[in-house]
Amino acid sequence: MSHRSADFTNLLNTTKKLLSDLMSIPQNYDVMFFHGGGTGQFAAIPLNLRALSKNVENPTADYAVTGSWSHKAMDEGAKYIHTHKVFDIKKPFVTVPDPSTWNTNPEAAYLYYCANETIHGVEFQEPPTSLPGVPLIADISSNILSRYFDVSKHGMFFAGAQKNVGISGVTIVGVQKDLIGHQQPHTPAVLSFKEIHKDNSLYNTPCSYGIYITKLVLEWIRDLGGVDELEKRNKTKASLIYDLIDSSEGFYRNPVDKKYRSRMNIPIRIKEGDEALEAKFIKESISRGMISLKGHRSVGGIRASLYNAITIDETQTLADFMKEFMEEHKN
Amino acid sequence: MSHRSADFTNLLNTTKKLLSDLMSIPQNYDVMFFHGGGTGQFAAIPLNLRALSKNVENPTADYAVTGSWSHKAMDEGAKYIHTHKVFDIKKPFVTVPDPSTWNTNPEAAYLYYCANETIHGVEFQEPPTSLPGVPLIADISSNILSRYFDVSKHGMFFAGAQKNVGISGVTIVGVQKDLIGHQQPHTPAVLSFKEIHKDNSLYNTPCSYGIYITKLVLEWIRDLGGVDELEKRNKTKASLIYDLIDSSEGFYRNPVDKKYRSRMNIPIRIKEGDEALEAKFIKESISRGMISLKGHRSVGGIRASLYNAITIDETQTLADFMKEFMEEHKN
Repeated sequence: MSHRSADFTNLLNTTKKLLSDLMSIPQNYDVMFFHGGGTGQFAAIPLNLRALSKNVENPTADYAVTGSWSHKAMDEGAKYIHTHKVFDIKKPFVTVPDPSTWNTNPEAAYLYYCANETIHGVEFQEPPTSLPGVPLIADISSNILSRYFDVSKHGMFFAGAQKNVGISGVTIVGVQKDLIGHQQPHTPAVLSFKEIHKDNSLYNTPCSYGIYITKLVLEWIRDLGGVDELEKRNKTKASLIYDLIDSSEGFYRNPVDKKYRSRMNIPIRIKEGDEALEAKFIKESISRGMISLKGHRSVGGIRASLYNAITIDETQTLADFMKEFMEEHKN
Repeated sequence: MSHRSADFTNLLNTTKKLLSDLMSIPQNYDVMFFHGGGTGQFAAIPLNLRALSKNVENPTADYAVTGSWSHKAMDEGAKYIHTHKVFDIKKPFVTVPDPSTWNTNPEAAYLYYCANETIHGVEFQEPPTSLPGVPLIADISSNILSRYFDVSKHGMFFAGAQKNVGISGVTIVGVQKDLIGHQQPHTPAVLSFKEIHKDNSLYNTPCSYGIYITKLVLEWIRDLGGVDELEKRNKTKASLIYDLIDSSEGFYRNPVDKKYRSRMNIPIRIKEGDEALEAKFIKESISRGMISLKGHRSVGGIRASLYNAITIDETQTLADFMKEFMEEHKN
């Protein structure tokens, strides 16, 4: 099937419409599909928006670094723009300084944050506020469509599809139309907002099959009741695990500040990091069909990822196992 | 499934091994999977190889422009390097000047060509020869694994997977290892040979499902007898159509120099471009279940694309229909 056929264009536009409806994306935004994942956008953002900085001699951008992903975004961004951290917290990332205290720059091309840090389990409950004239940019790769997200507060948002909206290879980008067209001359076409917008995401062959899968996922979300219903389910799921952790008298521990605890990714340590016991937990969980509970290699421990596809029942199964394991190993 | 899981790493390495075996890729090459399609590589190539030009003040690269795709590659490349056409033929692209007459530059960072131009149906039967010390680079997106391809004559080759090796979203890149590590500082990580090589194509989440599909296609090719068998079939398929065209006394016409006729894509005009008759042909072909015979919008007419997935029987069905249509409309 040609990606320029009427059939595929129809599929693409239906997918855009479904996403726009589910996320209440205002008319003055375009939704685009890129190649390159979130990591591609880490470069695309400064390449496309550097010219917006009011500091013409040394264009600058603000970054809220709350975990590995925002850190990577800033490192990649530094190839193209002077990057500035609006606060300086060190590892381990377990909280976010109150946004009212952030050292933001009115000359910044944009203010960047990661709405949910998958590795550290740190999630913003509300978007921060950027200074007037400074577009706010959110990486929502790991919590898109899991909760209400106010698009209108953002100049741009993006998400790799593989957590909540389909398979890897599709990158969803929503951008306010007046932020399109400011790209640097050396922006690769595949990362240019202008080129991808101009041809309705058909500048080159998109990840067609992946977009088809995204359409199926969006229809599933629409049919089950939309983002409101998913948010309800996700709150329930997260409570099942956090309540158990908090009542475990230190057997399980989640290190994140309660105000910033993620509903999607819950890092867990057992007995303050008893690695032998954690390894036993992971081994037993696999034997019960729960196969991806190992924490990210950079932080260790256990991580429960409760993406949209995970049901309340499945989460209950995990909670039951955690309880059983605790009772067996508490002393 | 995490892209860093043992299961996925195993799948990735198996896919690389299958491709290396089928294409006889020498040990001093790495096979990588990129995001971004061929269009991403159009930028990646000069970004990664510009430093190889012996003209340090004005780094330059040679391009053989034989159709739309090599033209696009050169246009995108011109963002990053001084591009130079090794010959200057104008549209319509129907032949290639003999490589011995090309005006190549010993200081070029590389010599670039497109092995098969899908829109114009112009295919190299042999790779051209580059000057000593100048790596030869081939876009083999639309004829990979359709015929013997001598990797060892090339510094690098690449192919979007969607014609002969799977679904769009996967870009296969083969590069001589000593050409890795010369990238410009401003190369986006997702387009950097160094970054993607270093992490065995796992710098960021690759198009995992697409790589799985590629693996299935490669196993299918291996099991049917490899590239030799496919080349035999492709010769037979192409002959079925070209023989009919050549014996049609001008009813059908393929404008390409016989020495450069493509086995994969056969552009066809009816009665020197009788558009009403061509539209009738396309309409009738669709009613017989042949749904993608319309020529590319930039050249019109008809195009038969005989990629690996098309069987000899299917090609015979097309030839039979063409014959029938000709008999009905010859006068």
